[in-house]
Amino acid sequence: MHASPTAGLVDALAARLGRAHVVTAETDLAGHLVESRGLYRGHALAVVRPGSTEEVAFVVAECARAGVPVVPQGGNTGLVGGGVPYGGVVLSLARLNRIRALDPINATAVVEAGCTLKAVQDAAEAADRLFPLSLASEGSCQIGGNLATNAGGTSVLRYGNARDLVLGLEVVLADGRIWNGLKGLRKDNTGYDLKDLFVGAEGTLGIITAAVLKLYPRPKLRATAFLGCASAQAALAIFERLREACGDQLTAFEYIPRFGLEIVLKHAHGAVRPLAGDHAAYALVELSSPQADADLMGALETVLGGLIEEGLVEDATLGASEAQNRALWYLREMLSEVQRNEGGSIKHDVAVPVSRVADFIEEATLACEAAMPGLRVCAFGHFGDGNIHFNLTQPVGMDKAAYLAEWERFNRIVHDIVARLDGSISAEHGIGLIKRDELRLYKDPVAIDLMHTLKRALDPHNILNPGKVVALEGEMPAALPGRG
Amino acid sequence: MHASPTAGLVDALAARLGRAHVVTAETDLAGHLVESRGLYRGHALAVVRPGSTEEVAFVVAECARAGVPVVPQGGNTGLVGGGVPYGGVVLSLARLNRIRALDPINATAVVEAGCTLKAVQDAAEAADRLFPLSLASEGSCQIGGNLATNAGGTSVLRYGNARDLVLGLEVVLADGRIWNGLKGLRKDNTGYDLKDLFVGAEGTLGIITAAVLKLYPRPKLRATAFLGCASAQAALAIFERLREACGDQLTAFEYIPRFGLEIVLKHAHGAVRPLAGDHAAYALVELSSPQADADLMGALETVLGGLIEEGLVEDATLGASEAQNRALWYLREMLSEVQRNEGGSIKHDVAVPVSRVADFIEEATLACEAAMPGLRVCAFGHFGDGNIHFNLTQPVGMDKAAYLAEWERFNRIVHDIVARLDGSISAEHGIGLIKRDELRLYKDPVAIDLMHTLKRALDPHNILNPGKVVALEGEMPAALPGRG
Repeated sequence: MHASPTAGLVDALAARLGRAHVVTAETDLAGHLVESRGLYRGHALAVVRPGSTEEVAFVVAECARAGVPVVPQGGNTGLVGGGVPYGGVVLSLARLNRIRALDPINATAVVEAGCTLKAVQDAAEAADRLFPLSLASEGSCQIGGNLATNAGGTSVLRYGNARDLVLGLEVVLADGRIWNGLKGLRKDNTGYDLKDLFVGAEGTLGIITAAVLKLYPRPKLRATAFLGCASAQAALAIFERLREACGDQLTAFEYIPRFGLEIVLKHAHGAVRPLAGDHAAYALVELSSPQADADLMGALETVLGGLIEEGLVEDATLGASEAQNRALWYLREMLSEVQRNEGGSIKHDVAVPVSRVADFIEEATLACEAAMPGLRVCAFGHFGDGNIHFNLTQPVGMDKAAYLAEWERFNRIVHDIVARLDGSISAEHGIGLIKRDELRLYKDPVAIDLMHTLKRALDPHNILNPGKVVALEGEMPAALPGRG
Repeated sequence: MHASPTAGLVDALAARLGRAHVVTAETDLAGHLVESRGLYRGHALAVVRPGSTEEVAFVVAECARAGVPVVPQGGNTGLVGGGVPYGGVVLSLARLNRIRALDPINATAVVEAGCTLKAVQDAAEAADRLFPLSLASEGSCQIGGNLATNAGGTSVLRYGNARDLVLGLEVVLADGRIWNGLKGLRKDNTGYDLKDLFVGAEGTLGIITAAVLKLYPRPKLRATAFLGCASAQAALAIFERLREACGDQLTAFEYIPRFGLEIVLKHAHGAVRPLAGDHAAYALVELSSPQADADLMGALETVLGGLIEEGLVEDATLGASEAQNRALWYLREMLSEVQRNEGGSIKHDVAVPVSRVADFIEEATLACEAAMPGLRVCAFGHFGDGNIHFNLTQPVGMDKAAYLAEWERFNRIVHDIVARLDGSISAEHGIGLIKRDELRLYKDPVAIDLMHTLKRALDPHNILNPGKVVALEGEMPAALPGRG
């Protein structure tokens, strides 16, 4: 489909970027050919590291001319194989890492795609502002990748997804032209919304090189609580009551099942049991406010006190210091990591309407437990957004490979329930390779067709991250993940 | 370009929709051929009123087959000529006016395009929720039109534009297929963002037939203040301080110049002078909170007290009752209407970064006053969003037609300043016909080209609202407005 990559192309790129920024040695390529969980291993002609938007445009134009695919990469922390190359050139955005401007009064920052999320957060904080996007990989993921995948994380309840945090973009198109849409405007109705085409498109429609991000007043106060309750249904009732009482001050409501807390306490170094007894379900709750005189602790105590009296909350603890708050958050943050200590894990990143999130957890748990006795459901995450990481840990003692071979069967069980509840089979991780073919089973065929229309219109020669998100006519089937 | 419309088409539509819903009599068409300010007068073969999404799809499919344009219309309250037909069939969404579902826990409503904005607001309120979009024409504009034009209004500061208030859409495409994207999810990363293609596209890429809207906790308390200050720069400093002190409780910050207040007091029935003295500039400020125990009046008094002591605020009054709050809002709301009492008005709906909004008002005021001595600048509006309705009232005694003939000259003066400040020449009203050709002077040519690519991809035969927003090759120049 693509012309075989030529040494002439590599030479042309090296002549413009400098030989040091066009990497072809196998050992230097290695880290760019796999995704973070080792599910896919690809191959590439070269990794190129342009130092400016103009150099990105040059690389794309040269590759387009040679018919060679371009796979953009940020921090390569994605979880769906979206950044794994199968041939062509890996384009690393890492050298585009400047904060170009920050306007505290307009509450915007203009940042380049290769800035780490942490660097963006820090720049905002230095100006007494908040950039609210927050993820486990924030120290190494890059903002360009966050936008290309419409990243979620723990602040969505109050501040929205990455898509909601961007006002404008600079994008290199499939033919190497640069679209400069770096406006920092709250209102702009001058034609079609172009930026949202590229946000969440995983580099298949254009390569984001810079963005104007929205900043917020920096929270001056936080209050954090960890509570135990009897069920997911109870957690939903508690969430409703907290939102009613606290409005926008409710900035996080994260769900942790009993099994999840148990494995964190067992495996995470320094994790401290938050409540004396055991409960079927737990929630980590955070209030925050930019107003220094808000009485968040008082508000939280009042609401939780009422809920304890009613019996909805079985027990609760409030962080009395920043250190205690961090210790409570640590329990939630370590949950992703410690699952591997219990063997194979079959993972689903799904969302349903918030009103159905408890129904979903209950129904899917029963269905999976019935399908494989001994299987341990680890359903946790962004409950207040309706987004559950519905992960299934293998039965104790089962062969890991034999367990992981059941992945497709559990996809069908879980995703069929999600579909019946009008949900999404990818809430925040994206499609990439891992869900590309799965998507065809659940997405409206007209929507799939519209996606193809857009891909063909914006990348007619299928140069940009080919094979990801959408599969064009005659394209290879998605590689099956080698679920390590 | 389009085949001449045939009686066969009208008969086919009448057979499906019923004769009563296919209107061809001149007198019945009249209201659908003009826009609300009378700037354009078009013509049409018929007005059709489908009663369901399937009937909309049927109409579009039949028109596409006959090569006849379809111009969708909601409440026909737009200000840019976007709903005026130049041939073809006007498709009224008015009969699609059901609230299909409302889920208070998920905080969503599924509504059909023909619901008035007021009906949507009322449905939300009946469920103790808020649908925050709020505009002068809310009693007659329809939610489908609000979404198709990405409407703004007075709640954008806190809740965003119409685009930010929609989670999913149902759309009839140019070939008559129906895309059902009515998901009510806070997170859904299953491929390209399709809904934002149609929001703000003014019916040129598809016809929105229904939407899932976001609802919010209903504010339990409001506090409203009207303040006077020395300049736009002072207003910006005041805005900054209020946002710093009140965070998200600040839900409106509307700017009114001295001339604006004067003409409201002169012409608006029942308008009451809010402050004893005169000031160069005024702001209408609103705080609100979903928390019933928030002390908004106290907060507002404290901040304004401090600002008066510093001399930034020259005078202020707080509404002591809902009736007084309404009286203060009345001064702002009547401002659009009363301008006509002072003769011709040349209007601009522009936005700049918030940090530059005072610079813009000052610079553009000086430039316009210099260009025509005696001209009276009426720059008002959504200051906190950087969105100013920069309207120019004719000099006293000048011939109105002679004044309005200067429209293009003032466009150039005002829009050139907007462009230099990285602003937008259409903040909330859209492009339609009135700014279609103007847009080419100010928009990045790559962006214009991307818009053409999208139009060609989604509506290859140019059936949907042709000639609006983008002008395709060989298309007629935009009709010049007959600026009544």
